[in-house]
Amino acid sequence: MATDDPLSRAFAALADPTRRAILQRLAAGEAGVVELAAASTLTQPAITKHLHVLERAGLIGRSRDGQRRPARLQLDGMLLVDDWLCRAHAEWTERLDRLEAHLDVQEESTPMKESPDA
Amino acid sequence: MATDDPLSRAFAALADPTRRAILQRLAAGEAGVVELAAASTLTQPAITKHLHVLERAGLIGRSRDGQRRPARLQLDGMLLVDDWLCRAHAEWTERLDRLEAHLDVQEESTPMKESPDA
Repeated sequence: MATDDPLSRAFAALADPTRRAILQRLAAGEAGVVELAAASTLTQPAITKHLHVLERAGLIGRSRDGQRRPARLQLDGMLLVDDWLCRAHAEWTERLDRLEAHLDVQEESTPMKESPDA
Repeated sequence: MATDDPLSRAFAALADPTRRAILQRLAAGEAGVVELAAASTLTQPAITKHLHVLERAGLIGRSRDGQRRPARLQLDGMLLVDDWLCRAHAEWTERLDRLEAHLDVQEESTPMKESPDA
């Protein structure tokens, strides 16, 4: 399957509540595996795996600080997702506007039933 | 794994270029499996599987028209994704603003080196 393009990787990385929680934690500042594991019910190896997925998706970056490799937010992956959603929205809104206009025309050409107590 | 929440389903459904192409096709109007398969290199059963994933994610709806079950865009899944991204953005922007302010302060307290030809 050809699903390993950068945009698919970003969406796939976001398709997990633990990874979304890690991103939300990192919005408050960078953090290492030990801190992230302490704040969750997961083991350090499990957190490391999630960080790897987020890093491949361009959603986080990791620096080196002695033994620590703190993770911090990175915008690359998010910008891809944003860009796709913006374009999709523009198309969808146009389509929904056309549908709405179509329904309005139908409504105008259909005589309204009078309500029984009118 | 607890990844079967509605938001994770929506992100997972978007993590595939074929499914994103189907959504883009449906932005131009509803379409059935036969039309969608004709416009791609996939078989009708493969398209049906993708439609099932999109439907479970609340990204499309399917009506019944005799033998046909045309698919059309539905906003439920997209609104979930939008809502999460909006909140994430607000947090990230705040964090990036703070980082920027921090860097500005550092820059101000670091004497600029004069360029050799100044």
